[in-house]
Amino acid sequence: MRSGVVRGEMIFPFLGGVDVLHVIQNGPAGVAETGVPLAEVRLVAPLRPASVRDFVAFEEHVEGVRRSVDGSAGVPEAWYDAPTFYFTNPHAIYGPGDDIPFPAASVARDFELEVAAIAGPGGTVFGYTIFNDFSARDLQSREMKVGLGPAKGKDFASSLGPWIVTADELEPYQKDGFLDLWCSASVNGVEVGRDLLSNMGWTFETMLAYAARDSVVRPGDVLGSGTVGNGGCLAELWGRTGSLTPPPLRDGDEVTLTVEGIGSLTNRIISGPDGGALPPVRRRDAAKARAERQ
Amino acid sequence: MRSGVVRGEMIFPFLGGVDVLHVIQNGPAGVAETGVPLAEVRLVAPLRPASVRDFVAFEEHVEGVRRSVDGSAGVPEAWYDAPTFYFTNPHAIYGPGDDIPFPAASVARDFELEVAAIAGPGGTVFGYTIFNDFSARDLQSREMKVGLGPAKGKDFASSLGPWIVTADELEPYQKDGFLDLWCSASVNGVEVGRDLLSNMGWTFETMLAYAARDSVVRPGDVLGSGTVGNGGCLAELWGRTGSLTPPPLRDGDEVTLTVEGIGSLTNRIISGPDGGALPPVRRRDAAKARAERQ
Repeated sequence: MRSGVVRGEMIFPFLGGVDVLHVIQNGPAGVAETGVPLAEVRLVAPLRPASVRDFVAFEEHVEGVRRSVDGSAGVPEAWYDAPTFYFTNPHAIYGPGDDIPFPAASVARDFELEVAAIAGPGGTVFGYTIFNDFSARDLQSREMKVGLGPAKGKDFASSLGPWIVTADELEPYQKDGFLDLWCSASVNGVEVGRDLLSNMGWTFETMLAYAARDSVVRPGDVLGSGTVGNGGCLAELWGRTGSLTPPPLRDGDEVTLTVEGIGSLTNRIISGPDGGALPPVRRRDAAKARAERQ
Repeated sequence: MRSGVVRGEMIFPFLGGVDVLHVIQNGPAGVAETGVPLAEVRLVAPLRPASVRDFVAFEEHVEGVRRSVDGSAGVPEAWYDAPTFYFTNPHAIYGPGDDIPFPAASVARDFELEVAAIAGPGGTVFGYTIFNDFSARDLQSREMKVGLGPAKGKDFASSLGPWIVTADELEPYQKDGFLDLWCSASVNGVEVGRDLLSNMGWTFETMLAYAARDSVVRPGDVLGSGTVGNGGCLAELWGRTGSLTPPPLRDGDEVTLTVEGIGSLTNRIISGPDGGALPPVRRRDAAKARAERQ
């Protein structure tokens, strides 16, 4: 596996086996004079992030998705106070063209159209890529009742790609600190969602500063924008229409996310192996516990 | 910094610069014939985990803490269905004796007494260490209103230590798959909590299998047990008594967690630098958004 720089329809490999994380940490590296046609290369995820924070920066998404996943309505006041995020699994990262194995038992399969900022050194944004935060809404909805957020509903797969566009390349799209990029999602070639990235409630720089406050963000960490509004995921539409329309993703469905200035990321849905049953909870015997503490 | 094996009051360094992650991944390594007295060594966290999952496996903790952090009562039915966990920050790991910088603005500072299992290869538990999941309850309580779990309330610090005890060494404490170890917590030398680790609702093996289902757990990943009951954190006691008794942690307070068969982990509370204000949210202009989409 090699890393390099895309120019037009060619990729130019970094010299000396340098990888993307090294460039993020240390700045530009030399590339080979001779490129390889993009069409002859199999792309993988542009980065193995050390951590993934996923924000929820789009008001319209929160409004719709809460109705179908939480069973609640409206946007909670706390959402406006600060850019909410949760940590998700950094070990299940997929790339362009990869099949995405959903938990076999899940029937409420969904995608999430996001843009991810890649943290650079010293609180900067190194660049951006497309981020699909695949979600098993039935698992997620159940586990969120405990109040600690999503885990198994999202830890099976996220995809990143097709490449990282450095922050300077997107300067022309900056408007008041927001990136004015059209983002769209399609399932089997039919568009189901379209929104402007600039409809975020906070800029990536603000979210990065918030993540780093009292804490540590490392170069190469991924910060998801949160799902865009107006159909950035199916659950938002389910919440608005009160029905499962469009239907949940099924085996064989192809999801393509496209972001102006970045590119397209396509993945196909499959089912993973059956997880089997877990041993049941051992309920607490309060009387026994008290006796032991005597 | 070097890694090694503790025997009695001595540490024997691994040969060839081998570190703990290497041993977790590849099995036992040779150690030097000559040891160093433990008393002459400054211990750091025994591991830099690639990811940290924190479970909530103690029913008694859930019952108490929900009252003070969530403002709700009782244990949600979904808690009994499967071992709930969330991902937390792998980049803010502290070790024995380290000062723990809390967010300066937080006045509801708390510890959490947990045991962490360290994942080995192939779905096994390599060993155990003590885990203090420091929590800013005021920040946590506010952000959890959005429904995505804790983030800034916990991402500033976790401590691990004083060392990893391998799973075979704790075999004598096994009872029906649970580890029958007394765990206690003290603040400035006064005990505030004490519980048996075997009061978990699920075994570590079940929680590990659940984490790995449809997903990836890497050797060296940390899985926290969740906070023990009966005073495993202050918030549980606040929930039960309806008052801030014992009081939240303050600068200079020393928290010591002790687990039978493992050891003790002490940290002192300090305040981090003031985080400053963030730019406010940019509220969505729904009419403008609709017009743009025409």
